[in-house]
Amino acid sequence: MLYFNSTTRNPNCRAIMCSDPALDTSVPTLTFSLSAYLTERQRLVETALLESLSRCEASAVQPGYPPRLFDAMRYSLMAGGKRLRPILCLAACELVGGSLTVALPTACALEMIHTMSLIHDDLPAMDNDDFRRGRPTNHKVFGEDMAILAGDALLAYAFQYIAQYTQGVPPERVLEVIQRLGAAVAATGLVGGQVVDLESEGQTISAETLDYIHQHKTGALLEVCVVSGAILGGGSPEETQRLSQFAKAIGLAFQIMDDILDVTATSEQLGKTAGKDQAVQKATYPSLWGLEASQAKANELIQTAKAQLEPWGSQAESLLALADFITHRTH
Amino acid sequence: MLYFNSTTRNPNCRAIMCSDPALDTSVPTLTFSLSAYLTERQRLVETALLESLSRCEASAVQPGYPPRLFDAMRYSLMAGGKRLRPILCLAACELVGGSLTVALPTACALEMIHTMSLIHDDLPAMDNDDFRRGRPTNHKVFGEDMAILAGDALLAYAFQYIAQYTQGVPPERVLEVIQRLGAAVAATGLVGGQVVDLESEGQTISAETLDYIHQHKTGALLEVCVVSGAILGGGSPEETQRLSQFAKAIGLAFQIMDDILDVTATSEQLGKTAGKDQAVQKATYPSLWGLEASQAKANELIQTAKAQLEPWGSQAESLLALADFITHRTH
Repeated sequence: MLYFNSTTRNPNCRAIMCSDPALDTSVPTLTFSLSAYLTERQRLVETALLESLSRCEASAVQPGYPPRLFDAMRYSLMAGGKRLRPILCLAACELVGGSLTVALPTACALEMIHTMSLIHDDLPAMDNDDFRRGRPTNHKVFGEDMAILAGDALLAYAFQYIAQYTQGVPPERVLEVIQRLGAAVAATGLVGGQVVDLESEGQTISAETLDYIHQHKTGALLEVCVVSGAILGGGSPEETQRLSQFAKAIGLAFQIMDDILDVTATSEQLGKTAGKDQAVQKATYPSLWGLEASQAKANELIQTAKAQLEPWGSQAESLLALADFITHRTH
Repeated sequence: MLYFNSTTRNPNCRAIMCSDPALDTSVPTLTFSLSAYLTERQRLVETALLESLSRCEASAVQPGYPPRLFDAMRYSLMAGGKRLRPILCLAACELVGGSLTVALPTACALEMIHTMSLIHDDLPAMDNDDFRRGRPTNHKVFGEDMAILAGDALLAYAFQYIAQYTQGVPPERVLEVIQRLGAAVAATGLVGGQVVDLESEGQTISAETLDYIHQHKTGALLEVCVVSGAILGGGSPEETQRLSQFAKAIGLAFQIMDDILDVTATSEQLGKTAGKDQAVQKATYPSLWGLEASQAKANELIQTAKAQLEPWGSQAESLLALADFITHRTH
């Protein structure tokens, strides 16, 4: 169910005033089409990501130097992908009444950090993956040294980018976003999750440990996507809290689906090696609960997530549709 | 010449009001002793770094979990070293009239980032070093995967730490520090320098390329240490600019000395493998200019650096002494 009918559009969308036609979403429609929404938002994010790379290259002492480093950053940052994280950030910002422009630098930073985590996770010393999104992984193309450094560069630039390019937001809110983003990435966030994930390979682990892994490795960044959007958009503490709960639930559902797809989808569908988790005896929800119970748990989490959005009614149509998209995706 | 005589102390030092005895530097003295100064500041920084780790561990969902990741972070962050970067940051902050407390979180963050760069540089895919500061490198103790992740965690936490714990500074100044720090680390900073350094191994390179490497690999972070201290301390644009010029000059001098020491010092003195640069045919100032001319260039840069501090007179005694320390160190 990827299409939603609605007789009203989010009024916040109409309120966007901006000179960039790419940011103008005020074309009136009577129905909400997720696929059209995703296409439009992906285009917006791709354009913004290209601009973020151009800004970085232009600010080098010799613009574009060293070229191989910028090539490596661009190779992974512009490798496609669903751009779910920046799209969630933008949607949360709009939901609480903010404009797209205030969240766009942070949306880009979130994709930079997600990309960094993929580059580093794929390294031989970690998951040792040769393919990602249907293409050779960063270290297969540029070498391990460059892959490590491109990841480091993207991580540092992400924080710089938020601090430098966020406009129209009180600076203390920008600092709150940086603080939460750091915590979502560091030992208390995705890095912590990746560590426990690596330590758990070939081990029998508890459901609690599996929850820890996914709440940190995937959930923490997804949560900060939504929460940072809410903070930048001027959301109240209660709104931010609701959106945080929403994001936690869809984050876990997302990971459960990822585990399910590793079993059920082909490598071609995934754009990366399928069946990898089983091959390295990785703990997953399907291995712990079975496929059916895992799917049921994912569905239950999506209902929990959606319940958090009730106060917004049909204004939350994009986030509601994104929540469905996450559980119904096939790759 | 490690001791400076002075009949006045920096009045900013006396003005520090703080309840933590470790931050109280108001004990009156008539002479400036660099060794006493360094000992006191190193103790202050070590205490603050331990606190930064405790805060991170305490903020985990399960405090201190995952323990091996925190062990890996602590192993390298608390491995000693001169703590020059945080000390430079604190000194610049005081020089423009700021208190130590406003710069201390950033000082810690600078050491976290420096530590991250050492952990990643030592990896087999990069410089492949087995020893650092007289101890096995991070990946030799914790494995390559953990070393990469501990570095990532320190890098992300550094930005979080500044955003979360800096107090008593207008938030737009804190954002400026984060922006400059990001630029000093990313492709436009130390990562760019490391990339060109790796690409230059075994190559004949120009003096311009060697300058690029060092201005980025070492210089950019050293500069942002001093500049961030000045910004946090409330320095004027002119003061910040002077301190930036000071830092650029000592940054390059520092790197030239590092190259010289790789030739002249023993592994025991360095706490890492000596003669490494020659062994891998790394381009260095001594290999380009010879030892004597390299030493002369370092001395000239120190004079350029000191000239920037003239308007402050004897108030700049700590930074002047640190500049001398950098060129006269033997390890």
